[in-house]
Amino acid sequence: MIRVGVIGATGYTGLELLKLLLRHPEVQIVALTSRQAGQHIAEVHPQLAGRIDLHLENIGQAELAGRCDCVFSCLPHAASAEACAELLSAGTRVVDFSADYRLNDVDVYEKWYATTHPDPARLPTTPYGLPEFFAADIVSAPLVANPGCYPTSAIMGLGPLLQAGAIATDDLIIDSKSGVSGGGRTPKLNFHFPECNENFSAYGVGKHRHTPEIVQILSTLAGADVGLIFTPHLVPMDRGILTTAYAKRTDARSEAQLLEILKSKYAECPFVRVSENLPATKYTAHTNFCDISLRVVGERVVVVSCIDNLIKGASGAAVQNMNLMFGQPQTRGLL
Amino acid sequence: MIRVGVIGATGYTGLELLKLLLRHPEVQIVALTSRQAGQHIAEVHPQLAGRIDLHLENIGQAELAGRCDCVFSCLPHAASAEACAELLSAGTRVVDFSADYRLNDVDVYEKWYATTHPDPARLPTTPYGLPEFFAADIVSAPLVANPGCYPTSAIMGLGPLLQAGAIATDDLIIDSKSGVSGGGRTPKLNFHFPECNENFSAYGVGKHRHTPEIVQILSTLAGADVGLIFTPHLVPMDRGILTTAYAKRTDARSEAQLLEILKSKYAECPFVRVSENLPATKYTAHTNFCDISLRVVGERVVVVSCIDNLIKGASGAAVQNMNLMFGQPQTRGLL
Amino acid sequence: MIRVGVIGATGYTGLELLKLLLRHPEVQIVALTSRQAGQHIAEVHPQLAGRIDLHLENIGQAELAGRCDCVFSCLPHAASAEACAELLSAGTRVVDFSADYRLNDVDVYEKWYATTHPDPARLPTTPYGLPEFFAADIVSAPLVANPGCYPTSAIMGLGPLLQAGAIATDDLIIDSKSGVSGGGRTPKLNFHFPECNENFSAYGVGKHRHTPEIVQILSTLAGADVGLIFTPHLVPMDRGILTTAYAKRTDARSEAQLLEILKSKYAECPFVRVSENLPATKYTAHTNFCDISLRVVGERVVVVSCIDNLIKGASGAAVQNMNLMFGQPQTRGLL
Amino acid sequence: MIRVGVIGATGYTGLELLKLLLRHPEVQIVALTSRQAGQHIAEVHPQLAGRIDLHLENIGQAELAGRCDCVFSCLPHAASAEACAELLSAGTRVVDFSADYRLNDVDVYEKWYATTHPDPARLPTTPYGLPEFFAADIVSAPLVANPGCYPTSAIMGLGPLLQAGAIATDDLIIDSKSGVSGGGRTPKLNFHFPECNENFSAYGVGKHRHTPEIVQILSTLAGADVGLIFTPHLVPMDRGILTTAYAKRTDARSEAQLLEILKSKYAECPFVRVSENLPATKYTAHTNFCDISLRVVGERVVVVSCIDNLIKGASGAAVQNMNLMFGQPQTRGLL
Repeated sequence: MIRVGVIGATGYTGLELLKLLLRHPEVQIVALTSRQAGQHIAEVHPQLAGRIDLHLENIGQAELAGRCDCVFSCLPHAASAEACAELLSAGTRVVDFSADYRLNDVDVYEKWYATTHPDPARLPTTPYGLPEFFAADIVSAPLVANPGCYPTSAIMGLGPLLQAGAIATDDLIIDSKSGVSGGGRTPKLNFHFPECNENFSAYGVGKHRHTPEIVQILSTLAGADVGLIFTPHLVPMDRGILTTAYAKRTDARSEAQLLEILKSKYAECPFVRVSENLPATKYTAHTNFCDISLRVVGERVVVVSCIDNLIKGASGAAVQNMNLMFGQPQTRGLL
Repeated sequence: MIRVGVIGATGYTGLELLKLLLRHPEVQIVALTSRQAGQHIAEVHPQLAGRIDLHLENIGQAELAGRCDCVFSCLPHAASAEACAELLSAGTRVVDFSADYRLNDVDVYEKWYATTHPDPARLPTTPYGLPEFFAADIVSAPLVANPGCYPTSAIMGLGPLLQAGAIATDDLIIDSKSGVSGGGRTPKLNFHFPECNENFSAYGVGKHRHTPEIVQILSTLAGADVGLIFTPHLVPMDRGILTTAYAKRTDARSEAQLLEILKSKYAECPFVRVSENLPATKYTAHTNFCDISLRVVGERVVVVSCIDNLIKGASGAAVQNMNLMFGQPQTRGLL
Repeated sequence: MIRVGVIGATGYTGLELLKLLLRHPEVQIVALTSRQAGQHIAEVHPQLAGRIDLHLENIGQAELAGRCDCVFSCLPHAASAEACAELLSAGTRVVDFSADYRLNDVDVYEKWYATTHPDPARLPTTPYGLPEFFAADIVSAPLVANPGCYPTSAIMGLGPLLQAGAIATDDLIIDSKSGVSGGGRTPKLNFHFPECNENFSAYGVGKHRHTPEIVQILSTLAGADVGLIFTPHLVPMDRGILTTAYAKRTDARSEAQLLEILKSKYAECPFVRVSENLPATKYTAHTNFCDISLRVVGERVVVVSCIDNLIKGASGAAVQNMNLMFGQPQTRGLL
Repeated sequence: MIRVGVIGATGYTGLELLKLLLRHPEVQIVALTSRQAGQHIAEVHPQLAGRIDLHLENIGQAELAGRCDCVFSCLPHAASAEACAELLSAGTRVVDFSADYRLNDVDVYEKWYATTHPDPARLPTTPYGLPEFFAADIVSAPLVANPGCYPTSAIMGLGPLLQAGAIATDDLIIDSKSGVSGGGRTPKLNFHFPECNENFSAYGVGKHRHTPEIVQILSTLAGADVGLIFTPHLVPMDRGILTTAYAKRTDARSEAQLLEILKSKYAECPFVRVSENLPATKYTAHTNFCDISLRVVGERVVVVSCIDNLIKGASGAAVQNMNLMFGQPQTRGLL
């Protein structure tokens, strides 16, 4: 059994993580920590009543590390790296949900996140937790940087085409649409039901913090710097991200040939479904699947990919990473 | 032209009120007051950009009264009565959206609202602004108490049957369902999109503050004290209230005869549509109509009524009251 | 391993059933039958791509029975009983999702369903598949009548109070609200998105086919004929039923005492959560839980219960029944 | 008074058109025709009960023309041109909601719509009914081709920038998102509530029939053939289109300078609101406004525009066209 702890389990990714871990046959949840210490987790998430009997605890990372083989940190950025550094020093393995270890370059991090990185030394060596591309590094890593939700959807669609040299590295356009749970659980006017219900909007155009993460990973896969625009939108639904990406083809490859690149790349990936049919978020909701299709239109290829932002875009990916780190089949607890 | 001012126009009822007043051919909006003084109203409600050019002002009630023939107060209870008292002293006429002047009995008010009433002297003489029942009193009143949204839906359905003695006064069951805008514009966890979307719940069972208002008005119409249970529910939609009320028939009147009581009562009421068909909130959304139907089931009659909570349940009713107070046709600006 | 077949897997209950069965460690899905034979099940339900590799087959019940230990019938009423009779003759055990075997009295069935019952002989002996009340009969039954979704929500809340004699058997009022998936997967105008989105309505007042089922089971539990009104409503959300039931208390039992009746009754029931807090459909969505609370208001008690209409109200209950029939723990595959 | 008739008033554009016309002080609705002749229009659209008292009639175009100054045709393409040709021959003026007269080139029409055009002679001379660009032609036209909803949103944002030479004509990317009412009122599986609620999807990538319409109008405005990709998406909401368009800047104009091009172009257009703030569909819902903003990101400009697909994207534009054709102020009946 893998003894697991969760830091910051009071948000939506924490809830989904607990639901997945409860179904995992090789996991024992041993501790939930939070500043809201004292509350039963079912007071925070009534969905969990009758399924888990743990109270939130306010304990230090060293104590937590002593009880756990694996800790998931769902803290906000900066706070998360502080906790992770302590946990790692105390000898436990960690999956970090925050953006803290996703970027290799501390200057890029500090520019986009407007804060000093508490643990910059680990940036160059921490693998990016997208198993479909970096499984080899994840297996033995003490710490894994769980990917952002938007980046996952974009990279899963464009990554293989860049690796294959089938699309140009410049002038990528990534138009993404997300359900509202991506905005977190803190009440704000723009997430107030009568404001965002029956509403669709773009936000953070050209400025969203997931941009450098997408740039870095796609550049790594392309073997060259990529140029891209990333535009997120808010969809009046709970969960799901659909990304429509536009890329220039580098040659006359047909739609079928481009699709074959994706199929071939993901042939051994149990959570990726490449299809001739365009995807829809509902078919991936509450699952760890990523659905992808594409269309050739003139000189461009339009790649449409989708995921559940809370599962494959967060908590499902984290469990997939844990499975790799602890010698479990990738799919355990996730189908 | 009726010169109109609005106090507290930054919420949802304020927005709907302004949209209605802008369409009213005999109204000139001359002032909007708020503690958020300085902002253009279109910064608060982007829907209004290009339609109205007024800034929120932080002026006293005396100054406001000097500029206006009619003021609508959208302030919270207690604060509203303070403002209304000053406005009335300064000689303008007022429609109050709050609960402050709806109840006749100050003790009942102070028990349910847990506050001291700032202007109890006006309680016995202020008409309840439901034109379908109290138009005669509204016409000449300096101050009108605009009804609550839930009470409007319940009274419109049950009132005429009580007046006719067709249903028993005891054991009324009023099961109401409201869209989320009824909860106001202040962000709170239970109105956070991912919490209340795809969710349906009951709240305040037996304790909702609209209960004494429904009791008072139905008792007035019945000519006897009524006994009732009122249960509100939250529906994942922006607007609309549907009330399903259960009452015991006092005799063997048929469904058609009971429906005829409603049809006859509302024959001259331009905003009430009595029908054999069961209503649905969508058919009244964005209108000042109240749709009503009923079914006889065993010894009971089930009365189903619905309105737009922001229009007939608030701002539309307020304009209808203003029309009556200023000698306008009831429907002006409302169709 | 229990070898399982599903008849009529193309609707929403079929989809949810397959998702649950795929997670069940002791189940092997061996056949899916439908008149849409030839299609891969993932063409019908894209959610299932990569999770199950079966085509719909158009085979007879005898052949199906030969391959299966347990068959779930998701056919419409009347057609279902025809299939069940053949399956039972061929020696397999059956869980029937339709209403065909829920009512004991063939005359009541034929009046409400306006058709001749194809297999009336089995009506008196087929248990009603609500494990919280009838587990003893379900264990050894060849055929189980899976309950209706509305009846489940109503009976779970009122049943124990009637058994305890704590509420009067006459004058029960059951006001239920359901998500749209309860209406099935066949496109119709009233389920067309722009018609039922942002809409709330009552339907079938006093005439819904679940009425006699609720009457029968509650009468059985009460040990006396109950009198009730049942009113269903349509909520603009995918899934979930919340039932608000109003009953007269038979004595001065307090809220805590009444709640204790529920807690005591369900103490050993792993899927029932009785709480002081009012339930909300979202907390039961995608689970087999039933959440219940209540409030005393005057002489009445208001019981609020909720379930996921597709899980505890259909497919989850069916798996729970299968578990009982095949000697499995009730919760297997369902947590 | 303008005597108005509507052909095919049973859909969503028909409903919105009637709601607008009922508010128009210079319009008298004299006839509604449909093959569903005999029904009262309020049986088809219960929203209209108490507001209009007309039955659907099944009369010929000649008779209709005799009664009307202006006819709106809401028929499907091909059928609409047949009706329009007869109406025009009979001497009435027509606003056509269908795509029949939007394209100048009959070959393009017949290729994309896969049908023979019933009235090709009028194609070259019928103005495209987008008043912000073609008011001069609309004023005196016997027939106006009311624009498509997606084209309106795209052209309003990109048109002025192309006219100004500020963006390149090739490689335009138009990523549009629409509410479900755009799909019409006929029940289909993909518009069935439990299918499209909580779902977001792309459809018709590179193949949507609005593509040639956008190409034609943008080419006209650019004075050169444009190259573009158009991708529509379905948003789980009733109404609204938001279009995110990506274009290459032709020079180093700043964000402020590009925004100024839009502001200047639309300075006299009462229904266009250009703003530094990104738009959201909800702020245009139920109005004839088009909201536009933009962002410069690297070498590209991202233009975000939005409208209510049923109002500015259909029925509001039609009334705006009628106002121009009949010498009324553009805004009459529309604010």
